[in-house]
Amino acid sequence: MKEQLIQDLRALLGDEAVLTGDAVTGRSAGAFRPDSLSAYALVRPRTTADVAEVMKRCAAMGQPVVTHGGLTGLVRGADASPDELILSMERMTRIEGIDVAGRTMTVEAGVTLQQIQEAAAAVDLYYGVDYGARGTATIGGGIATNAGGNRVIRFGMTRASVLGLEAVLADGRVISSMNTMMKNNSGYDLKQLFIGSEGTLGVVTRAVIRLHEMPASQCTALVAATDFDAVVRLLKHMDRKLGGQLAAFELMWQAYFDLVSTPPAQGRSPFAERYPFYVLLESLGADQEADSVRFMQALEEAMADELIVDATVAQSLDQRDALWRMRDSVEEMFKFGKSFNYDVSLPVSEMRAYADGVSAAAKANWPQGRCWIFGHMGDGNLHVSFSVGDGSDETKHRIDEIVYGPLAAFRGAVSAEHGIGLDKRAWLGVSRTEEELALMRQLKDFLDPQGLLNPGKVV
Amino acid sequence: MKEQLIQDLRALLGDEAVLTGDAVTGRSAGAFRPDSLSAYALVRPRTTADVAEVMKRCAAMGQPVVTHGGLTGLVRGADASPDELILSMERMTRIEGIDVAGRTMTVEAGVTLQQIQEAAAAVDLYYGVDYGARGTATIGGGIATNAGGNRVIRFGMTRASVLGLEAVLADGRVISSMNTMMKNNSGYDLKQLFIGSEGTLGVVTRAVIRLHEMPASQCTALVAATDFDAVVRLLKHMDRKLGGQLAAFELMWQAYFDLVSTPPAQGRSPFAERYPFYVLLESLGADQEADSVRFMQALEEAMADELIVDATVAQSLDQRDALWRMRDSVEEMFKFGKSFNYDVSLPVSEMRAYADGVSAAAKANWPQGRCWIFGHMGDGNLHVSFSVGDGSDETKHRIDEIVYGPLAAFRGAVSAEHGIGLDKRAWLGVSRTEEELALMRQLKDFLDPQGLLNPGKVV
Repeated sequence: MKEQLIQDLRALLGDEAVLTGDAVTGRSAGAFRPDSLSAYALVRPRTTADVAEVMKRCAAMGQPVVTHGGLTGLVRGADASPDELILSMERMTRIEGIDVAGRTMTVEAGVTLQQIQEAAAAVDLYYGVDYGARGTATIGGGIATNAGGNRVIRFGMTRASVLGLEAVLADGRVISSMNTMMKNNSGYDLKQLFIGSEGTLGVVTRAVIRLHEMPASQCTALVAATDFDAVVRLLKHMDRKLGGQLAAFELMWQAYFDLVSTPPAQGRSPFAERYPFYVLLESLGADQEADSVRFMQALEEAMADELIVDATVAQSLDQRDALWRMRDSVEEMFKFGKSFNYDVSLPVSEMRAYADGVSAAAKANWPQGRCWIFGHMGDGNLHVSFSVGDGSDETKHRIDEIVYGPLAAFRGAVSAEHGIGLDKRAWLGVSRTEEELALMRQLKDFLDPQGLLNPGKVV
Repeated sequence: MKEQLIQDLRALLGDEAVLTGDAVTGRSAGAFRPDSLSAYALVRPRTTADVAEVMKRCAAMGQPVVTHGGLTGLVRGADASPDELILSMERMTRIEGIDVAGRTMTVEAGVTLQQIQEAAAAVDLYYGVDYGARGTATIGGGIATNAGGNRVIRFGMTRASVLGLEAVLADGRVISSMNTMMKNNSGYDLKQLFIGSEGTLGVVTRAVIRLHEMPASQCTALVAATDFDAVVRLLKHMDRKLGGQLAAFELMWQAYFDLVSTPPAQGRSPFAERYPFYVLLESLGADQEADSVRFMQALEEAMADELIVDATVAQSLDQRDALWRMRDSVEEMFKFGKSFNYDVSLPVSEMRAYADGVSAAAKANWPQGRCWIFGHMGDGNLHVSFSVGDGSDETKHRIDEIVYGPLAAFRGAVSAEHGIGLDKRAWLGVSRTEEELALMRQLKDFLDPQGLLNPGKVV
């Protein structure tokens, strides 16, 4: 029966559109993954109509489908089993158009984040979403996971940048909602169903994304603080003083900053002393000279008010990049063996207590282990990582309990920006009520009654 | 049976919670409405649990329910028939708390927009949504209709400011998703179902809304242009030069500006000449002195580049308010008898052709009639109004065709910010595909199989 499906799909889409055997299993399962794909076939449509035809045939046969973008996710949200068919967006990579006056771009799902950023920049426009995997991550994957990243405080999650969407339902129906306006209250906003549902409610095939005018100034600083309450006040202070131009507020606890600023890491602290907290700040504005003056003034006021105790401002693009490289040097953690990495969100006012609790629990359980905490504090998002000298599933489960266990009491969430995938499914109940979980399952049944789309993920 | 329900609800919620007879029909049907409410009962819950109990009883009896906020909607989205029961949020008016560090406010659905703005201002915070009906419109209604207004270009529609939501389903189940973080990708974002669905999928009872730091500067100008393309370039120019601080870009065609700046209107044009286009511009920033310099520079550049031909900058709060009063003097239209008012969206690049076509069609049909066009150009949103000396349903239908008919070709939408209600339901197909409409109906059936919630609205 699978053989028949493959023949049908080859007849429909051409031989080169349907890979099987080594052509599939020889491919990596994704960034940072040691394993390979294990699906029995990988189908590469070129159009939404192709996707619709594939889904119709799969629906008729009860064939489960896992959609693949750039495979840069971190929660096993695109894992496919040998019984499943992969629908890869790798040949749907067309930028269909840019409306310079309307400041929108229409794209197919397989276009990468970096291609979008570059195409926007070529007409002096800017896409507000940015994260490390930009060269590989696709817009379809970013939409399916509602990706966050480094600019959320200014431009929001991916959801905020999606104006229009085209998706194929499990039964092959095409829902084309390719709206291009910032305002459209004409009936239910169906695209919201597909944003952030990790490919379980529909296959995103095309989108209209919102662009902004290209920022003409950028100011970046690394500052140090001795007290968490001061950091909370610093966030408010900088946000107010920069009048909406604050674009990044990246907090690093001392252990993480030491890791990325000490050999063998290439980064170096610009400060003579060590401090409990470091914050990487960035603004995006319109006038480099005037904005630099304002940025410096805001930092000087923060220093005078004792919100910060030390600061360095990037004087060149190189210096700016060096500061960001430290923040982004997560790979330094991997030198200590298997690491367990988490992405949680919680109210800013609860972060200190949460972080202290997690660190203390890690220390009590693994006195020689390491625990690093950093993240997008401006968005209420912390990343917590552990290396405890043992990578077993049992250890992972113990750490899961340390990280996720206290979140409910802090009104936090088990996923801030990475999604649920397979990894966090068991913990979803920490963040959501029974009634919410029941409604999610009903919604899944409503849109995908056979359970064909990305089986086992999220709900 | 209705009598039994009223008795039950009185026993449950107290006598003063259930109004009938004159206490209902003596109430106005809403702002700008000549008629009165006609529902047979009006129930005033105090808590989400009350709402849940009411819905359970109504579901058991198949009793349709229409939820009421401030009744400031413009599309008959809250009309209730004599067979229906009104659920009024008028006693759910508690501001439950403000998280100053996290910059969120938790509110019950009946709190007004203005109460939210004032409570935020009291702790130096700011709610990004604003529109004329602020003193009466409730946050629950704003969420249910995804209200827009004067600040969308900067802060987005209401959807962008809703972090968490609590809603009661048609069967009385409570879906409590009171998230307080900017980032939460823990499963499906269920609150999106209830935002903008006009009370047809659930009853919004509570919400967590996002606040911003209070802007410390405001610059306002009225400018004139002779050419629409120049206005398009002006939007880009100002947005770029203000680096994200542009907060309003309100376009007025000459006919509308003449109306609001000529007796009997109180407004007066600051310009000696008349021009084809006027734009009210506003920025919100952090430093009045520096921002004023920047704002003036941007305008001077626009003048030098011949994007604008005249400009006046408000030098005081009084002058600023006078400029906005002109923009907001929609009531001047009512002096010409019955007016028909529309709210559409379309790509900026199509606006000129669309407006010319609509004006010409109006002129051809009613040579003595009037047609006024203005709107939130920065958001792709135009308001179009007509007074043609006759207020009949037949005339309305002819104007509907003039306004909505060409929208599909321009890829526009029949509602930008007002919603669909009863008024635009027949025209929804102009903006949405058959597949979208079918999915909307299915979604309605899924969440409200008996069709109890706000019957007949939207779908």
